[in-house]
Amino acid sequence: MAVTHVVMFTWVDGTTPETVENLRSRLQDWIDRGEGLDGLTAWYAGTDLGLAAGNAEFAVSGTFVDQPAYERYRDHPEHRAIISEHIAPHIAVRSAVQFAH
Amino acid sequence: MAVTHVVMFTWVDGTTPETVENLRSRLQDWIDRGEGLDGLTAWYAGTDLGLAAGNAEFAVSGTFVDQPAYERYRDHPEHRAIISEHIAPHIAVRSAVQFAH
Repeated sequence: MAVTHVVMFTWVDGTTPETVENLRSRLQDWIDRGEGLDGLTAWYAGTDLGLAAGNAEFAVSGTFVDQPAYERYRDHPEHRAIISEHIAPHIAVRSAVQFAH
Repeated sequence: MAVTHVVMFTWVDGTTPETVENLRSRLQDWIDRGEGLDGLTAWYAGTDLGLAAGNAEFAVSGTFVDQPAYERYRDHPEHRAIISEHIAPHIAVRSAVQFAH
C-alpha cells in the first residue's frame, strides 16, 4: 500500500518569512535532487494561504509507494540535517500523520 | 498555482475504529463520484500507522489545480454534510493548512 506523510508546523514568534523560505527551499532542493528517495511519488510543501482562521502555518505532504520508501525519506541524512539545523529551532507546534491508502 | 489542503484530527476518547472507517468511506465514496470536484488532482485519507509517538490520528491530503478548485471542494454540500454529521461530533483536535505550490 502507498503511504502519505503529512506534517504541519506553527512557528515560534519572530520566525521570519525569510527563515521559512530558506527551510522550504532547502527541502525542495533536496527533493528535486532525489538521491536516495526511490519510491517518492509526490511531495509538496508551503506556507498557509490564510483561507481559514486557526490554521497552522506550514505543511508538507509526501506520498510514497510503500512504507519502506517513506522510512528512507524520514531517515535520510540530509532530511535529518535540514530538520535539526533549519526547522527544529523554529517549531512552536508540530503535528504529523502517516497513513496507508 | 496548485493548492494542497491538509487536515489532521485527533478524535475524542471512545471514538471507535468503526466510526472512523465510516467517515473515511463516506468521504472516499463522495470523492470517487467526483461530482462538482473539477480540478481535484489527488486525494488521500486515512488513519495514522503508529510509526511515531505523538502523531495525530487521522489525516486528509488533497491537491487541486488552483484555489477555486479547493474552494469548490471545501464548500461542496456533501462535504459539509459529511463533516457536520460524521466528523465534527468526534473531533478532539483539528489542525489544517492550505498552501500553494
